[in-house]
Amino acid sequence: MARARSEERRAEILRAALEVIAERGYRGASLSAVAERVGLTQQGLLHYYPTKEALLVAVLEERDQWDTGGGTGRESWRLELLDSLVEYNAMRPGIVQTFSALLGESVTDGHPARDFFTHRYTQVRSEMANVLRAEYGERLPGGLTPEQAAPLLTAVMDGLQYQWLLDPRAVDMPAAFRDFLSLLRGPAPQDGTEGNTGDN
Amino acid sequence: MARARSEERRAEILRAALEVIAERGYRGASLSAVAERVGLTQQGLLHYYPTKEALLVAVLEERDQWDTGGGTGRESWRLELLDSLVEYNAMRPGIVQTFSALLGESVTDGHPARDFFTHRYTQVRSEMANVLRAEYGERLPGGLTPEQAAPLLTAVMDGLQYQWLLDPRAVDMPAAFRDFLSLLRGPAPQDGTEGNTGDN
Repeated sequence: MARARSEERRAEILRAALEVIAERGYRGASLSAVAERVGLTQQGLLHYYPTKEALLVAVLEERDQWDTGGGTGRESWRLELLDSLVEYNAMRPGIVQTFSALLGESVTDGHPARDFFTHRYTQVRSEMANVLRAEYGERLPGGLTPEQAAPLLTAVMDGLQYQWLLDPRAVDMPAAFRDFLSLLRGPAPQDGTEGNTGDN
Repeated sequence: MARARSEERRAEILRAALEVIAERGYRGASLSAVAERVGLTQQGLLHYYPTKEALLVAVLEERDQWDTGGGTGRESWRLELLDSLVEYNAMRPGIVQTFSALLGESVTDGHPARDFFTHRYTQVRSEMANVLRAEYGERLPGGLTPEQAAPLLTAVMDGLQYQWLLDPRAVDMPAAFRDFLSLLRGPAPQDGTEGNTGDN
């Protein structure tokens, strides 16, 4: 019972931390701002997360939980699931803002999220390459190998998020991502165009 | 004479500001850290840039100068010039770090660089579309329109920068960007593969 309440409290704190980081970045965030948002003293917050860095690590781990839909893990991803992930992200700008801000900060000197992101991208590139290999074999229809396409797939997802966060009306993130997938798949037998030459 | 020295001083201050932002981000940067680096008091620095925000604006304008190689302007870009720009960027990680950190921060609430980046991306997407149209007409060989490809081109450049800054040995940024350009160009008559079936 006490344990369930403590878990609930932790979840509340993580949500508050996500918000504060989205608003101010990690360096601009303060433990007292997070504590205030959940009605705790800073001392009370430290009982759950003893340092600002420990809270950051928990936030980052939480993110990966969401991405992979809980226990399933990225190794079971397929290309259409990526498509759905981007659509899902377009419905949660707050979360995307938190992680885009953290990714940006992570390249500054000695940032506590740097190792997390470095490790994560190594993993993600390798998992993306596996997804692409399972779908297309050693050469994608667009001409690249899975290892060549994987960093591009990752870069497009991240880069589109910045453009979309800055100007959501100008950038249709899911549509742009589908355009990129169509490039990887190579020119189909003129699908879109053919439809237009039909008789309706 | 006094004017030349003042210009020189401003250039020094901008270089120092770039370094400090690369190390700490904008929110983590302080005017006193910039002042110290150029041997000025904070009061002395305020003579050149009256606020931290004014200094940031000057840094951002300076960046666009470099990108466009001085006066030429992006309207005269061609696709091969982009290729060279990415190669050039791979030789100046400090600058790339400054602007990747700023882009990341710009999506947080009320950030002073937000308008700059929003406006810049609107411009860049439109200029990229023009470059692509000049080269390929209304439909790229890979199947997209110039307006579909432009945000992807921009996203890949930004996204690759993060992966490369985090792990320069794992990510060959110029090579990955060339891979993306090859996707836009669509599958050539199997150039790479054909070479391998030859008799050497």
